[in-house]
Amino acid sequence: MAEHDERAHRDEWLHTWIGSSDPDHIRLGGLDLATEVMGQMTLTEVTYFLVTRRQPTAGERRVLDAVLVSLADHGLTPTALAARLTYTGAPEAIQGAIAAGLLGAGSVFLGPAGDTAEFLAAAVARGQAADEAVAARVAAGLRVPGLGHPLHKVEDPRTPRLYALAQQEGLLGPHLMLLREVAAAHEEQTGKRLPINGAGAAGAALVDIGVPPGSARGVVLVARTAGLVAHLAEEALSPLGPRLYAEVERRASDP
Amino acid sequence: MAEHDERAHRDEWLHTWIGSSDPDHIRLGGLDLATEVMGQMTLTEVTYFLVTRRQPTAGERRVLDAVLVSLADHGLTPTALAARLTYTGAPEAIQGAIAAGLLGAGSVFLGPAGDTAEFLAAAVARGQAADEAVAARVAAGLRVPGLGHPLHKVEDPRTPRLYALAQQEGLLGPHLMLLREVAAAHEEQTGKRLPINGAGAAGAALVDIGVPPGSARGVVLVARTAGLVAHLAEEALSPLGPRLYAEVERRASDP
Amino acid sequence: MAEHDERAHRDEWLHTWIGSSDPDHIRLGGLDLATEVMGQMTLTEVTYFLVTRRQPTAGERRVLDAVLVSLADHGLTPTALAARLTYTGAPEAIQGAIAAGLLGAGSVFLGPAGDTAEFLAAAVARGQAADEAVAARVAAGLRVPGLGHPLHKVEDPRTPRLYALAQQEGLLGPHLMLLREVAAAHEEQTGKRLPINGAGAAGAALVDIGVPPGSARGVVLVARTAGLVAHLAEEALSPLGPRLYAEVERRASDP
Amino acid sequence: MAEHDERAHRDEWLHTWIGSSDPDHIRLGGLDLATEVMGQMTLTEVTYFLVTRRQPTAGERRVLDAVLVSLADHGLTPTALAARLTYTGAPEAIQGAIAAGLLGAGSVFLGPAGDTAEFLAAAVARGQAADEAVAARVAAGLRVPGLGHPLHKVEDPRTPRLYALAQQEGLLGPHLMLLREVAAAHEEQTGKRLPINGAGAAGAALVDIGVPPGSARGVVLVARTAGLVAHLAEEALSPLGPRLYAEVERRASDP
Repeated sequence: MAEHDERAHRDEWLHTWIGSSDPDHIRLGGLDLATEVMGQMTLTEVTYFLVTRRQPTAGERRVLDAVLVSLADHGLTPTALAARLTYTGAPEAIQGAIAAGLLGAGSVFLGPAGDTAEFLAAAVARGQAADEAVAARVAAGLRVPGLGHPLHKVEDPRTPRLYALAQQEGLLGPHLMLLREVAAAHEEQTGKRLPINGAGAAGAALVDIGVPPGSARGVVLVARTAGLVAHLAEEALSPLGPRLYAEVERRASDP
Repeated sequence: MAEHDERAHRDEWLHTWIGSSDPDHIRLGGLDLATEVMGQMTLTEVTYFLVTRRQPTAGERRVLDAVLVSLADHGLTPTALAARLTYTGAPEAIQGAIAAGLLGAGSVFLGPAGDTAEFLAAAVARGQAADEAVAARVAAGLRVPGLGHPLHKVEDPRTPRLYALAQQEGLLGPHLMLLREVAAAHEEQTGKRLPINGAGAAGAALVDIGVPPGSARGVVLVARTAGLVAHLAEEALSPLGPRLYAEVERRASDP
Repeated sequence: MAEHDERAHRDEWLHTWIGSSDPDHIRLGGLDLATEVMGQMTLTEVTYFLVTRRQPTAGERRVLDAVLVSLADHGLTPTALAARLTYTGAPEAIQGAIAAGLLGAGSVFLGPAGDTAEFLAAAVARGQAADEAVAARVAAGLRVPGLGHPLHKVEDPRTPRLYALAQQEGLLGPHLMLLREVAAAHEEQTGKRLPINGAGAAGAALVDIGVPPGSARGVVLVARTAGLVAHLAEEALSPLGPRLYAEVERRASDP
Repeated sequence: MAEHDERAHRDEWLHTWIGSSDPDHIRLGGLDLATEVMGQMTLTEVTYFLVTRRQPTAGERRVLDAVLVSLADHGLTPTALAARLTYTGAPEAIQGAIAAGLLGAGSVFLGPAGDTAEFLAAAVARGQAADEAVAARVAAGLRVPGLGHPLHKVEDPRTPRLYALAQQEGLLGPHLMLLREVAAAHEEQTGKRLPINGAGAAGAALVDIGVPPGSARGVVLVARTAGLVAHLAEEALSPLGPRLYAEVERRASDP
């Protein structure tokens, strides 16, 4: 008995809350997968549930869906091109092409959603005002995350929409509000007006609905995976990879 | 003008139906992202829409959600362990840990959903009966995809649930039906009773709701990404990777 | 004691021949890393040693180096482009850009080295003649691996060089010889003259020097990693990714 | 003519120094691959050449090989386990298992070689003394890269060996020397004696032989790819992944 307890204790670190199986049941966060999850919950609800360990309210679900669909795809981005070019070499291993597409979600593309989430959450946790938080970044020579977009220079069309949805659902929380103040403080301190970008608004909204800041970058990748699957479906029908390669080769070899 | 036409023609291969941006708008499959997608469509609906190029019916959406949530996670699988061990070495690049987790979705794990989709779709396209399709695989020394599970030896709990849901929604189509006949033919030809596994039923259901068979493996990975994000959220709070490594090291070095 | 033996036995599967560490020593294949490997062996020798578990002869080393350098890089291939585009999004996680580049090494690019290795090794193991081996592939509607190249339509410049080097070193073994006969048999059976490509010759040479056929694809990736590192070094100095993206975007949005 | 010049100019960004092909030749850094690289250069020399754009001296080559082999493998690390567990799910796509293994080369494992290279190069470039450089890190609450090891607490066996080899070859340059002073300054400032770890010494040595600091992390991955290929060769013969999974599952489900 003592031995059994000790072993149970020794292996506690190997337990996971997320999922488990036995011959007759599969459980997800303690729910029975077949009867309590399948047919009852959407992928968005399961994503929320697995990451936060509680069911989303209707409003949280609606905001989460808005965030996810806002970042699912933006056409022939470096991420989509990397996935399609990987498919060119290894069409039999579609998981590799998707992984290649996700690997570009870093500090420049997509990652800023998570960076904004972490920046705002740290400021809120410290009770730091927007102008202090901005001043600290500017002093350290760092960019303020969540601001500016190479294409949407005046306004990112996703941002007002996400704020409006959060407001409608009563979920315009401290992180979305701080981000607005951050944009104003940034303009005041630098003289440069940068709009809140869609990734930044997404990151703020995720924290406001309860997603841990460190999971924001990952949550966004669930949606991006959907976009990449669509690119690979299109690539299978009308291959862009081989033609892009051929054109690059030809132009690179031009005397 | 002629020159412009020529260029437009020359670059047609660079067009994508999936997404595009200009300074004021982002479009997804021709819809305006901010007004027609955000707040209007769920991630599941967008996934379906981007892959099939039409909106799902309520029934298709429900079956797709059931498929997705059924494959989101199964605990500490090799896939989850690979993601968590990758996080141990590179916690700052969460996209890499998720990519590492997806890379194990091949012929043994998760990939069988897509393999079953392609096997059934080929048989349906050829008008091949279940016993012929099975006999051809058996003769070629190949496994019949979609059958058998190392843990759920009698019945995979996801399978009857998915069939019931498809039936309820009037979407018990030719691929799900053929898979049942395939299981029966397999038992008859080999004397070995193998249950339809959850991945196989998922693959069949995806084709029945209109997902291209070649995209089934990818669609499943959207859900798996959600499970991996949850594992990494848990790993950040209660790290399993370093302890698993330490234990393996210690036991591997045991004289 | 009995308990200890049982545990030792229980954990045998966790032992690895490849490497181990204790506070004072690191071992690689039983050699002391600091004194017997560092300063004594090249990367090529260590690669050979770790994969085959014996030291290469001078000839094996020379052939292995020739194979490796022949596949290190070929300019702006889909693989190099995928790595560079991934770097565009995540320059802080260079391991992700390299991984993205390697993921395109599949059935179309680079992978054929390993496919040829496995095809030839299976034929040699079965004592199958070239014409039989070719006929079996052709009958099954499969391509014969190792033949043909989109650019080097008459002769791949790497092939005669690799054959000459293997000959010089007395290592023109059964797999390289069979591959020549395979090319001849293919021409006879199909009327189509396809040169032996560099990847195919590389795969055959690897098996002739003792690399397990299933490791040939992997061994080639060691060299390709070097090429990808060079592309990322160049990308850091003269970024191609952002310009390629901008041009694709512009042309894709052309009315 | 003017038009041609303009086009040549327009596409300059698409040129690469690294590699190119035409029907009869393949070039690597301007050398003819078949005659000037194959049979003439080792993989280590090609790696050095492609990254630095010049041939290494005999001493640079020896130090580079010592660095590479010192980091090729250390047994069942998280990186090797991630690769082997990925192989469990997708044995047909070995490039994916290797990629999964590389993805864990981040801030905790392997990455520190590159981090040390960049830290030392920045200090040398600024003419900063060791105690200033250390004080700046300590003040910022950052770890000093290149110091300390979880297992080799007194001395990392690779470090004195690498210093001795660099000395023998007349390549004990400013970065290796600074790293020694950094270790001393760190002990003085913190009262904590941390040995120079093998990754740190490797990073310093790479910069001393002319590798750009930003390429150090990548160069190390060339060697790690070799170690991963060996793990996958072993995994194919004596699979550890499925047993590790089974044991984890069993212990995780223990009541």
